[in-house]
Amino acid sequence: MAIKDLWNEKLKVVNLGNPGFYNDLIAFNVPAVNLDWKPVANGDPDLIKALEKLSKRPEIDAANREALNRINSSQPVLTGVGIARDTIPGMTENTLLHAGPPIDWNHMSGPLRGAVIGALIFEKKATDYASAEKLAASGSIKFSPCHEHNAVGPMAGVVSPSMPVFIIENKTYKNRAYATMNEGLGKVLRYGAYGEEVIKRLVWMKDVLAPGIKKAIEISGGIELKPLIAQALHMGDEVHNRNKAATSLLIRTLLPFLIKAGLPEKDFHEIVTFINSNDHFFLNLSMPAAKCMLESADGIENCSVAIIMARNGTEFGIKVSGLKGQWFTGPAGIIQGLLFPGYTEADKNPDIGDSAITETVGLGGFSMASALAIVQFVGGQPEDAVNFSKKMYSITVGESSAFSIPILDFRGSPTGIDIRKVVETGILPQINTGIAHREAGVGQVGAGLVNPPWECFRSALLAFAEKYSK
Amino acid sequence: MAIKDLWNEKLKVVNLGNPGFYNDLIAFNVPAVNLDWKPVANGDPDLIKALEKLSKRPEIDAANREALNRINSSQPVLTGVGIARDTIPGMTENTLLHAGPPIDWNHMSGPLRGAVIGALIFEKKATDYASAEKLAASGSIKFSPCHEHNAVGPMAGVVSPSMPVFIIENKTYKNRAYATMNEGLGKVLRYGAYGEEVIKRLVWMKDVLAPGIKKAIEISGGIELKPLIAQALHMGDEVHNRNKAATSLLIRTLLPFLIKAGLPEKDFHEIVTFINSNDHFFLNLSMPAAKCMLESADGIENCSVAIIMARNGTEFGIKVSGLKGQWFTGPAGIIQGLLFPGYTEADKNPDIGDSAITETVGLGGFSMASALAIVQFVGGQPEDAVNFSKKMYSITVGESSAFSIPILDFRGSPTGIDIRKVVETGILPQINTGIAHREAGVGQVGAGLVNPPWECFRSALLAFAEKYSK
Repeated sequence: MAIKDLWNEKLKVVNLGNPGFYNDLIAFNVPAVNLDWKPVANGDPDLIKALEKLSKRPEIDAANREALNRINSSQPVLTGVGIARDTIPGMTENTLLHAGPPIDWNHMSGPLRGAVIGALIFEKKATDYASAEKLAASGSIKFSPCHEHNAVGPMAGVVSPSMPVFIIENKTYKNRAYATMNEGLGKVLRYGAYGEEVIKRLVWMKDVLAPGIKKAIEISGGIELKPLIAQALHMGDEVHNRNKAATSLLIRTLLPFLIKAGLPEKDFHEIVTFINSNDHFFLNLSMPAAKCMLESADGIENCSVAIIMARNGTEFGIKVSGLKGQWFTGPAGIIQGLLFPGYTEADKNPDIGDSAITETVGLGGFSMASALAIVQFVGGQPEDAVNFSKKMYSITVGESSAFSIPILDFRGSPTGIDIRKVVETGILPQINTGIAHREAGVGQVGAGLVNPPWECFRSALLAFAEKYSK
Repeated sequence: MAIKDLWNEKLKVVNLGNPGFYNDLIAFNVPAVNLDWKPVANGDPDLIKALEKLSKRPEIDAANREALNRINSSQPVLTGVGIARDTIPGMTENTLLHAGPPIDWNHMSGPLRGAVIGALIFEKKATDYASAEKLAASGSIKFSPCHEHNAVGPMAGVVSPSMPVFIIENKTYKNRAYATMNEGLGKVLRYGAYGEEVIKRLVWMKDVLAPGIKKAIEISGGIELKPLIAQALHMGDEVHNRNKAATSLLIRTLLPFLIKAGLPEKDFHEIVTFINSNDHFFLNLSMPAAKCMLESADGIENCSVAIIMARNGTEFGIKVSGLKGQWFTGPAGIIQGLLFPGYTEADKNPDIGDSAITETVGLGGFSMASALAIVQFVGGQPEDAVNFSKKMYSITVGESSAFSIPILDFRGSPTGIDIRKVVETGILPQINTGIAHREAGVGQVGAGLVNPPWECFRSALLAFAEKYSK
């Protein structure tokens, strides 16, 4: 058809992007279809130029396939329990680890500050808020991201030298990951509570819970975490915001070994009751399992796969395999979702915690289609959960070989976030997470959905292009 | 358009029913749509007449709503454990209960015969196969359906006087239901095994398991089963063929009370290990929970809701609320599905067990859309599971108020099978079940899907019309 003839035809319009045109046409009864289209890289000329350069580098695709292969062939196994100071590399008597990218005392949000205070009291370096605050601000405490010590922590993610930690070993690549044990809900350190009951619980966890579980794990010879996660994904969990099935399976797995451990009856009863009363107990295992898998893919030349997404309550940070050691950060977002009764928007802390490591490995928000019942907790409809998972395939290198989503015909979960694809499509990773109160120690106030700031991926891509398109 | 003009038009054909016409048209490139249509009541004139008469009786709809209301307002609670002879109404020293409709020794299939032999040995009424068989055939043992004693049993479903049984009480209507405890997989009585290990396990269950659980239940004050089932439906179970989540939740619920029960350490360990090693342990609770709910809706005048579907391995039988006491039977079907390695079609026993009580209350095959991962066990695709559930709404009075299906936007599971709708639509209830080996004692050889014989619903509807359309 010649262009001039177009105007004699009855028009059927396909509108790309800005829905304003589409809405006008519909108002005038002109048949039109709207396509949710965004310009490449959100129309950013620097990013478009960077993407163009990178598109001529087939070695990037090869490196990304290698990363996916390492993630998929990883075998994270819970092999033991240790004390942080003796176990976590680089941990000193004056080190406190925290969630997310690096941050100093002055920039910490309420829940992170509270957790620091609590950890210093737990370590007997301070006796009360005032003395702990003084010490924290003094410069003599070294604050360092969990992620820089092969560790991860939910919410504030504070790890102090005397705390017991799970040891997860990647049997394929021999790297390890560490995480504290989940304290349960209510007044807990990870939400910045530091009162007597919090410290008392932490002491009990160190003196009773950790040695008991350690013994059980030793007898077990190690507990493989991938099969537990894979099963949980068929049982309505995505192992970030919903860990009910995974925790149940863990209890069933641990129980025979806890029994064989021959613990004092009181200890056995307390341990079983403690784990049993907390549906999120498994979170502190799904996180280091994910960390362990992803870290095996760190430092691959030419690799544009994100291996960390983490938040400290102030900033969101990511790391990319081919840019080893560099953080790319932006302001932490505000989570949209459902608030517990009695709380308002003003109560929300910005996004916090290392738990987005689950999304980074293809779980959490990426596997939300496995956990439809979670929409009752984070808001939305089951269809939204399915769509979130589907969308994530647009920004990932491939699929998990171990974790599958029944509703998507058992398709492997979307795995290996390619920062090129994120920037090209403008689709940000979908994170499904808890909402902390902005003040120390109030606890969880809701749950919902959030994305990383665009800025993280923008600066990471520019740095990646700078390094790899010369 | 006048009829004569039709032949001058380009035809677009909609074909109803027999796809032969449709296939021919497609072969000649004539555009056609095929509609999967069946004549009302499968074209049976007696049934069409009966349905017509019944359609003029609004009191039937009212009675069915009452049945649904009773099912929905039922509150089945696990209140205790008793010994069959002291607990189950009508149980005598010479009574053996079995699954399905009434049957005599001569008509029993392999697994049911094996279970009878085993029960007689367990009761010390016989010492070996020969003496037990002689006794079973002598006429001095009274065989009676579980369902005629407020009880249900999976597979052979044999209950003998000394066996311990769960006591489930419907707190709303005060009726009770009973079931033995699940023995696990492998060589077990319910699949007709009667060897030494089977009898030894039954003795241990009577002497250790039952008293331990009884004590725990007493301390608990009663365990509500509806919340456990509702949660399990959000965790990938349909509580007939898949009970992994429900069993896990039960373990977590029982554990604190088992601990408080102060059992001898050895007993505690054995009990916990036994339940923990059997993902189907909850089946023997979902079944009596369903029985308890349905029985509250039995005997309602004008009510065309099926309150029992059950199979004895030879015949399938149903009962209808408004036709209290009458069985309507037909030959038990052959289950289509996946066989365990090494077995063939020739190994299959016809459909057996009272477990279709779960479907009767809207669980099992009716809630398969909640349990997508089950298709890996019974065959088919996740979409099939969703479609089975959707289809069942065509033959049910309404929806469950307690059990919901996330993937169907948390719609209540299809509940209250209206025999009028089954006959009118020709859609038979979808049952999702295990396959027993046809010989006694081999055990489960697979799992799959089956429907009741049309004949059950045909004869039930004719009897219903006979009684209620005068």
